[in-house]
Amino acid sequence: MTSPTRTLYRSYIIEEYHITEEPYYVPVGDEIELFEAAYAQKIPVIFKGPTGCGKTKFVEYMSYRLAQPLTRIRQNPDASDVAAEPTNGDDSEPDNLPLITIACHEDLTASDLVGRYLLEGDRTVWIDGPLSRAVKAGGICYLDEIVEARKDTTVLIHPLTDHRRILPVEKRGELLEAGEGFLLILSYNPGYQSALKDLKHSTRQRFISIEFDYPPRDIEAEIVAHESGVDSDTALQLAKLGEKVRNLKEHGLGEGASTRLLIYAGQLIKQGITPRRACQVAVNWAVTDDHTVQRSIEELTSSVFE
Amino acid sequence: MTSPTRTLYRSYIIEEYHITEEPYYVPVGDEIELFEAAYAQKIPVIFKGPTGCGKTKFVEYMSYRLAQPLTRIRQNPDASDVAAEPTNGDDSEPDNLPLITIACHEDLTASDLVGRYLLEGDRTVWIDGPLSRAVKAGGICYLDEIVEARKDTTVLIHPLTDHRRILPVEKRGELLEAGEGFLLILSYNPGYQSALKDLKHSTRQRFISIEFDYPPRDIEAEIVAHESGVDSDTALQLAKLGEKVRNLKEHGLGEGASTRLLIYAGQLIKQGITPRRACQVAVNWAVTDDHTVQRSIEELTSSVFE
Amino acid sequence: MTSPTRTLYRSYIIEEYHITEEPYYVPVGDEIELFEAAYAQKIPVIFKGPTGCGKTKFVEYMSYRLAQPLTRIRQNPDASDVAAEPTNGDDSEPDNLPLITIACHEDLTASDLVGRYLLEGDRTVWIDGPLSRAVKAGGICYLDEIVEARKDTTVLIHPLTDHRRILPVEKRGELLEAGEGFLLILSYNPGYQSALKDLKHSTRQRFISIEFDYPPRDIEAEIVAHESGVDSDTALQLAKLGEKVRNLKEHGLGEGASTRLLIYAGQLIKQGITPRRACQVAVNWAVTDDHTVQRSIEELTSSVFE
Amino acid sequence: MTSPTRTLYRSYIIEEYHITEEPYYVPVGDEIELFEAAYAQKIPVIFKGPTGCGKTKFVEYMSYRLAQPLTRIRQNPDASDVAAEPTNGDDSEPDNLPLITIACHEDLTASDLVGRYLLEGDRTVWIDGPLSRAVKAGGICYLDEIVEARKDTTVLIHPLTDHRRILPVEKRGELLEAGEGFLLILSYNPGYQSALKDLKHSTRQRFISIEFDYPPRDIEAEIVAHESGVDSDTALQLAKLGEKVRNLKEHGLGEGASTRLLIYAGQLIKQGITPRRACQVAVNWAVTDDHTVQRSIEELTSSVFE
Amino acid sequence: MTSPTRTLYRSYIIEEYHITEEPYYVPVGDEIELFEAAYAQKIPVIFKGPTGCGKTKFVEYMSYRLAQPLTRIRQNPDASDVAAEPTNGDDSEPDNLPLITIACHEDLTASDLVGRYLLEGDRTVWIDGPLSRAVKAGGICYLDEIVEARKDTTVLIHPLTDHRRILPVEKRGELLEAGEGFLLILSYNPGYQSALKDLKHSTRQRFISIEFDYPPRDIEAEIVAHESGVDSDTALQLAKLGEKVRNLKEHGLGEGASTRLLIYAGQLIKQGITPRRACQVAVNWAVTDDHTVQRSIEELTSSVFE
Amino acid sequence: MTSPTRTLYRSYIIEEYHITEEPYYVPVGDEIELFEAAYAQKIPVIFKGPTGCGKTKFVEYMSYRLAQPLTRIRQNPDASDVAAEPTNGDDSEPDNLPLITIACHEDLTASDLVGRYLLEGDRTVWIDGPLSRAVKAGGICYLDEIVEARKDTTVLIHPLTDHRRILPVEKRGELLEAGEGFLLILSYNPGYQSALKDLKHSTRQRFISIEFDYPPRDIEAEIVAHESGVDSDTALQLAKLGEKVRNLKEHGLGEGASTRLLIYAGQLIKQGITPRRACQVAVNWAVTDDHTVQRSIEELTSSVFE
Repeated sequence: MTSPTRTLYRSYIIEEYHITEEPYYVPVGDEIELFEAAYAQKIPVIFKGPTGCGKTKFVEYMSYRLAQPLTRIRQNPDASDVAAEPTNGDDSEPDNLPLITIACHEDLTASDLVGRYLLEGDRTVWIDGPLSRAVKAGGICYLDEIVEARKDTTVLIHPLTDHRRILPVEKRGELLEAGEGFLLILSYNPGYQSALKDLKHSTRQRFISIEFDYPPRDIEAEIVAHESGVDSDTALQLAKLGEKVRNLKEHGLGEGASTRLLIYAGQLIKQGITPRRACQVAVNWAVTDDHTVQRSIEELTSSVFE
Repeated sequence: MTSPTRTLYRSYIIEEYHITEEPYYVPVGDEIELFEAAYAQKIPVIFKGPTGCGKTKFVEYMSYRLAQPLTRIRQNPDASDVAAEPTNGDDSEPDNLPLITIACHEDLTASDLVGRYLLEGDRTVWIDGPLSRAVKAGGICYLDEIVEARKDTTVLIHPLTDHRRILPVEKRGELLEAGEGFLLILSYNPGYQSALKDLKHSTRQRFISIEFDYPPRDIEAEIVAHESGVDSDTALQLAKLGEKVRNLKEHGLGEGASTRLLIYAGQLIKQGITPRRACQVAVNWAVTDDHTVQRSIEELTSSVFE
Repeated sequence: MTSPTRTLYRSYIIEEYHITEEPYYVPVGDEIELFEAAYAQKIPVIFKGPTGCGKTKFVEYMSYRLAQPLTRIRQNPDASDVAAEPTNGDDSEPDNLPLITIACHEDLTASDLVGRYLLEGDRTVWIDGPLSRAVKAGGICYLDEIVEARKDTTVLIHPLTDHRRILPVEKRGELLEAGEGFLLILSYNPGYQSALKDLKHSTRQRFISIEFDYPPRDIEAEIVAHESGVDSDTALQLAKLGEKVRNLKEHGLGEGASTRLLIYAGQLIKQGITPRRACQVAVNWAVTDDHTVQRSIEELTSSVFE
Repeated sequence: MTSPTRTLYRSYIIEEYHITEEPYYVPVGDEIELFEAAYAQKIPVIFKGPTGCGKTKFVEYMSYRLAQPLTRIRQNPDASDVAAEPTNGDDSEPDNLPLITIACHEDLTASDLVGRYLLEGDRTVWIDGPLSRAVKAGGICYLDEIVEARKDTTVLIHPLTDHRRILPVEKRGELLEAGEGFLLILSYNPGYQSALKDLKHSTRQRFISIEFDYPPRDIEAEIVAHESGVDSDTALQLAKLGEKVRNLKEHGLGEGASTRLLIYAGQLIKQGITPRRACQVAVNWAVTDDHTVQRSIEELTSSVFE
Repeated sequence: MTSPTRTLYRSYIIEEYHITEEPYYVPVGDEIELFEAAYAQKIPVIFKGPTGCGKTKFVEYMSYRLAQPLTRIRQNPDASDVAAEPTNGDDSEPDNLPLITIACHEDLTASDLVGRYLLEGDRTVWIDGPLSRAVKAGGICYLDEIVEARKDTTVLIHPLTDHRRILPVEKRGELLEAGEGFLLILSYNPGYQSALKDLKHSTRQRFISIEFDYPPRDIEAEIVAHESGVDSDTALQLAKLGEKVRNLKEHGLGEGASTRLLIYAGQLIKQGITPRRACQVAVNWAVTDDHTVQRSIEELTSSVFE
Repeated sequence: MTSPTRTLYRSYIIEEYHITEEPYYVPVGDEIELFEAAYAQKIPVIFKGPTGCGKTKFVEYMSYRLAQPLTRIRQNPDASDVAAEPTNGDDSEPDNLPLITIACHEDLTASDLVGRYLLEGDRTVWIDGPLSRAVKAGGICYLDEIVEARKDTTVLIHPLTDHRRILPVEKRGELLEAGEGFLLILSYNPGYQSALKDLKHSTRQRFISIEFDYPPRDIEAEIVAHESGVDSDTALQLAKLGEKVRNLKEHGLGEGASTRLLIYAGQLIKQGITPRRACQVAVNWAVTDDHTVQRSIEELTSSVFE
């Protein structure tokens, strides 16, 4: 086992962070067409779905894809007349569409998003927040787990989601009109929502909503094999275990095992840990602290990896 | 599908933001006459009504209209003697009536509205908040979703709504008397209000209240067709679906589908998405996470778009 | 209908804000004599009463009146021996008694009232709050809706209401002894008070309390006619409606319609709106969102304006 | 009735505020001896008792008295051997014992009491809080309504109340040892205390406690006559009313009428208001908003002032 | 009775505050040996026990004693082989072991303990908090009533209580390793603890715990006589009363009377107050506001001081 | 008994704090292999387990071990092919892997972790927080008791735990990509978790989880003997007592006695305290305030140390 040598860290300017390598993403349905239609019409989008089912990967994939001047084939036959055209008149230069991701939490203030004045030397300097940066750069702004945000954050995005596409920067007495490529994407996990933390209708009805779920077994096995490096048999067994664990959800398990955890299990197996032990630490103990549920998952693991 | 080229963003000074193009607004009743009477008498107004029924559009339309030196025809026959007169002695120069919109939320402080001192270089500079800007510019100030505001915000507007029309700027030891054209408009959605977040009588009895609802089917179809570009048949089907979904409100649906969502569905259809899929993501999944309600809306969609 | 031309706003120094024109106030009982007796003895006063029944108007009227060196006739016969004397030895120069109004709310801090240090250039400057200004100027200080205030505000006024008449300015290590003309007036609406927001006895027993209610029908009609410009018949009908709506208070209406709302209705009628529609938006929808109560008020309106 | 001419306000340095005129105080029992014994032994004291029963007056009286180099006669015969001696070797110069009063509330921070750094010009200046001033000046520090204070305030005074008599000024890394004459006095009203706001034993057992109550009828009448200027018959009637109102305490009245309110009533009567009306606004409406209780007090008033 | 002349206050640097005079402390058991063993092994200690039973006195005594280069005799025979040796090779110079006491409360922040930056002139200066001072000075740090502290304070001390003995000063990006003599002592009163304010196991299991209680009657009488100056008969009577009052604890009394209160009673008696009156204000009224309990204590007092 | 001479304290830069001496750690199972596999694959790890069972020791041990260029033998036979290889091509120079430990608490803000601007002289200086330091230094970052952290802290680590390994530093508009050796480790104690303070699935499913428990009796005795210096018989008796106390957990004891407490008991015994008294203060009183439970533990102690 090699202890990796520590390299220097790297640092990026937020609005210059582009997805430069094509992310590995396997589409499950027509989500790519829906996203492209919404983007063309500047309709903001909500991604609904459970933890670790690929929402973040999808927004990275779309941000990479929309920046490429390639011809894309639409899968939807009803819309075949508008498909198969170049996405950009100027094919020679790919459009670097920035992706700005903001993890929402209950202490995120409006100033955190829009910006604030900072004292520098003998004068104050305005520092744009990530949302202002996204608005100015005309990029995709991805607000992860929006229901965690405080109300001021949620309300702040309202004028950005109607025909005005405006961000009020009240501390500067200014209104920012979003650049052409700007689009707001929210993610949220309806499984979590308590009555208190629900997304208000005045917010949610400003978006179309695409629902996501874990991929079907074959696609998930393909993903696990690709991402962890295990052989396709092991990957299929892991996908099978994932499926079975998710079925426990009605039997006391808060949330099913994510695709990410199955990949972790695969990575540990690749590293020489036995499959059962790998699944114990990467799946079983990772999803629950309840000893009864743990015993059930242990049995599922034994039945899959006999 | 074309990925739009990102243009530069634009920036405005808050109190110089005028509605320069006539907003598309289809009146449903005598709301224009009521607003004009209140404005002439400097009576503050509350707009009550559900999410996305057009309250914001209406205040934009009125702010545009009141700035135009045109002859307007009153629809109310009882008041015909005061109608049909020029709105302004000086017809040659349209009056730029600023519209200042403030989205209220529970973290909005009095300083956010009135202003604050900021350090700049070696001195502090006073920065007017949007409410002070509206008071000074003599514009329309639209406080959206007022019940979300903290009590200090709500109380702050009291002296602006009685005969004094005064905004105390306590940090400067100053009282601002509002310019002639200033008017305060609040919006709120009575459907949401819990006992805790009700508008206090000491506040609400300082305003007259105009109640809004979704437009009737024919007017809504006209709006959907105009705003999304779909043909009038599809628009009528979408309006029909909107009507039917709103009737579900007693069957577990928190809030009916807004006109905005029907326009989104129209835009997706224009973009090549099938009507049923467009209604699923733009209406069904957008209004609810409840699978039982989703199935009902699915059936409604099938019955409209057979 | 004329869109008013917007004039420049005006700005005042808080402690220089005097009531210069006699406010229109119709006394209902001996409230003027009580106030004058309290003022002469420097006894602080609480005004109790419902929303919009004239408490603010009364304090403005008294502040104007006490500043006038006129002979006043006492209405109370028992006290006739002390009445009918000039209020000021020096009749030639009216005493400008400042009126400082502070709308209380739960976020109002002691610093908001007393003052704070602000950085200006390379030094900090002390800015007096409105209460310090009132204490120094020897004016009337009107704390509106005191029960909304935080405890620190309420406690702050204690030393101002006993024989010491002192305001501690702790950030400056200073005690301010109020000028001769200073008097503290609180308003509060007992109808609102929850157990949590009650006025503590240690505070309320520092004041005498005058209870206010809506004026009787004839006086209210007189006020509505004067303030809105409608004829006395219409004004009487509006006053009758006000009375009837207030009787609904036991039937689900939170608070009765204020005199102010009746004036609004009058103003809309003057502007050409039909009486029933005017009462709908200015009274009915303004006081309630409950459709059942709205129907009752609709019927009351019809019965008054047949 | 004369509107008083407004004089200039006066300002004092907190620790230089001495009681220079003998306050009017009528002792009810041996409270003076107890206080003097505690002061001689540097034992901190709690005053317990209802609103407006004279606790503040007593601390002012003692602070005046302890500053006078007079011979005092002890009432307690057992201690007669230590009585009747001059209080100060140097009789010629009265000792100015400062009295620092701090009204406690739930937003009072430790910094408010101890002090804070303020920016002044290009340097920060430390400003002592009132407690530090009292400790340094060796005066009497009176914390009014201590149970309202936050825990940090309450804990702050602990080291001042044991043998160390020390105030930690942590922002300066400093400990202040109190001057010789320093004594801490707390007041609190056990009638108010909820379980949440009780004085902790770790605090209360650092003090001896003197319980106060309203004075007996004759003494109270004497006080009312002296303070309001009414004749002794009226004063006795007011004291009788006070007694009767206090007996209502078990019948829905939160707190009995304070001596202060009876004085207010007397002052209004002196000003020409009839006794019944004076008692209505100064006693009845001042102590309750409950109409049933108000009727009972009205009857009591009628029976006293037939 | 002499009113003491006020002397100048004195001021100390926190970490230079040593106990220079031997505190009067009467050991009850082997607490001195336990403390010395823990100190030698650098094991942090919790003192558990009721209000005013001598915990603070004990930590002062130990801090004085550990600083003295004297030979001490161990009382525990099993450990006689390690006893009776000089505590310091260099007997000539007593080691000044600083004692830093911090009264915990729910508003005490980590910055209050560790330190903060302050602006001074044109630069910021770091000011060590009392905990940093104790760590650097290698003294005894006594956190009084630890359960009152906020969680950040409690967690802050964790790395100081394991083998690392480290205090992270995150604002400076620094770790402080405690000097040799440093030891952390907490006090807490288990009688108070609600479920909410319990000491977490992750904190309490970092300490050994010594339980304290009020001293037995004879020792307490000795202490009362010594500290108040009363004769030994009176002292014994007071100790007897303390014992009896503590037995009332099951009959509605929150906490028994502390030794400190008995000393107060003694001091008042010395000052000429009769024993019964002294016990009323120093014991009875000091421990309870409940009239029923007060009557019981009154009877106990009468039976002791017939 | 020697009072230790106080030496000067030492101070370290956070990211330069390496474990330089091999920590004493006795492995219980395959935890070392699991950790090494996770580290090689950059999979973040959660340590679950009770108070004081050795989680902190283990992370210190692994941080020391991963920094050593030694050949290690894998215990897992299935992975023998990847074992027994040098961990670093350059054997001559050990890799100093920093260990940054952060004790989480509910007041820990995102700025505390990431960094903040501080004014220094006439300019503001950015000070990296410990998490930024760990990311830049490529070290192991150990967040102790993560469930105590506020939501903003928890969310902040999300982008550091997926393939991006990025820390957004929003106040600087910057993204930090973690250095090669960086790994995030969380600890938490499932026994404590209330429903309110549970680790969210969106967080926990980003980690594999290793469950820890107290070591078996023989290993624990070995540890106690090594760390306290008692003989192996006494150590075994202490381990036996630990085991018995932990069995009381179902009988009202919140948490079992940690290994650390057993070591404390051993240290006191070494210092001459009798075993029973040592166990009383170091185990019994340290784990509970409940007298009934204390009696049970007393009996267990007597049965072990007869």
